[in-house]
Amino acid sequence: MKKLKILISNDDGITSPGIHELSNAMKEIGDVTVIAPATEQSAVGHKITMKIPLRISKFYKGEEFFGYAIDGTPADCIKIGIRNILKERPDIVISGINNGSNTAVNIVYSGTVSAAREASIMDVPSIAISVTNHAAQNFTYAGKVAQKLVKLVADNDLPLGTLLNVNVPDLPEEKIKGIKLTRQGRSKWDDIYEERTDPYGAKYYWLTGDLMKLDNDDEFDQFAIQNDFVSITPIHFDLTDFETYNAMKNWKLSDI
Amino acid sequence: MKKLKILISNDDGITSPGIHELSNAMKEIGDVTVIAPATEQSAVGHKITMKIPLRISKFYKGEEFFGYAIDGTPADCIKIGIRNILKERPDIVISGINNGSNTAVNIVYSGTVSAAREASIMDVPSIAISVTNHAAQNFTYAGKVAQKLVKLVADNDLPLGTLLNVNVPDLPEEKIKGIKLTRQGRSKWDDIYEERTDPYGAKYYWLTGDLMKLDNDDEFDQFAIQNDFVSITPIHFDLTDFETYNAMKNWKLSDI
Repeated sequence: MKKLKILISNDDGITSPGIHELSNAMKEIGDVTVIAPATEQSAVGHKITMKIPLRISKFYKGEEFFGYAIDGTPADCIKIGIRNILKERPDIVISGINNGSNTAVNIVYSGTVSAAREASIMDVPSIAISVTNHAAQNFTYAGKVAQKLVKLVADNDLPLGTLLNVNVPDLPEEKIKGIKLTRQGRSKWDDIYEERTDPYGAKYYWLTGDLMKLDNDDEFDQFAIQNDFVSITPIHFDLTDFETYNAMKNWKLSDI
Repeated sequence: MKKLKILISNDDGITSPGIHELSNAMKEIGDVTVIAPATEQSAVGHKITMKIPLRISKFYKGEEFFGYAIDGTPADCIKIGIRNILKERPDIVISGINNGSNTAVNIVYSGTVSAAREASIMDVPSIAISVTNHAAQNFTYAGKVAQKLVKLVADNDLPLGTLLNVNVPDLPEEKIKGIKLTRQGRSKWDDIYEERTDPYGAKYYWLTGDLMKLDNDDEFDQFAIQNDFVSITPIHFDLTDFETYNAMKNWKLSDI
């Protein structure tokens, strides 16, 4: 069997531990290229860089070439990686392993997911994978999950335009209760902007807040990980709300 | 009838002509507050600012107070606007009028849409409105469309979590062929990164490319505007691909 060509990216940047763990896990099953942001790009959503140019630099781990660092966003890495760096199209793109979960509304804000989404826009199957803790300790099991899921994606038909968003509890393997196929949860943020005063007397505002855990059924991603299950959610980028589309056929749009 | 409380934002920044036209149109039907990015934020997707704080400044048009400028993204403007600036929650949020269409895959990249999406995440009805030309001339008709649509949204039930994404051809009103209820199109970019050399001999890469117009039916947003119709698409932020979700019930996820 031909070796899988695997492109890896993330949003925590090319120096983050999660991408090194993912690269090690993927090298056991395929030919790996890492193309990742030079600096942390959390919560950048699906930002792409248009008004300024990008630069590509080589990143070494000691003497050994590890991958390409791009001074842009996760979505930029996938675009320029597939268009200008890779000689052949990858068979699969994997983004992560992210520090911190990407469930519910966080899917909208996530840079990790945006790298995988950009791959799916470019018709490359993709996976986003996150561990549920901003100081995650247990990347090894998440790496194994990614390995097995890559094989499942290769064996099954993941439609073009769909990616798998995977969240893994930050626990050792023996404490994981199982795998759940899930849908995006409804949990969202109760935002607080802390008002502070700078040394010159001017006000500034810093975003913080709590995730309101609004999911109470393990069909939802957020509830599954709270209960120590791995959550796997297929997501796509057709944002049309078809239920409202049908309801709006009765609106008097001709009045406009 | 109580006057509508209307919050306006955009991604072209508080100095762009489109937001001033929109503000004028909305003042005829409600109480308007403008809270917009201090600088252009095109293609920022749904980026939010977390690692650095935000500042709020007042923006004047001559002697007259026009609105609040935020040194962040469109989504930041909505969050901090609703949480910290407005005394009461708005009845509706309108983002625009954007220079350039936000159809098909551009919905994913758009800052204009992200402001409206953030409002819908916060359970505020919202509209994103764009004119199809990066040097748009015909904002007046788009302003009228926004006025009428605000009334339709107030008269009908737009579900919480859904926003209307509106695209208006850059034509005088008499050349507009009508209004189409649409779904997100499939058109996407054939990206090109132009390789250039800086004055110091180093390479840099600049994103350009052409939109591949893959839609050939006026149920799709991109096709509707190409044919001189106003396009209105209901979109939401539940990204779950339910068709694949159902298909994946037959995948051997238990093998993981």
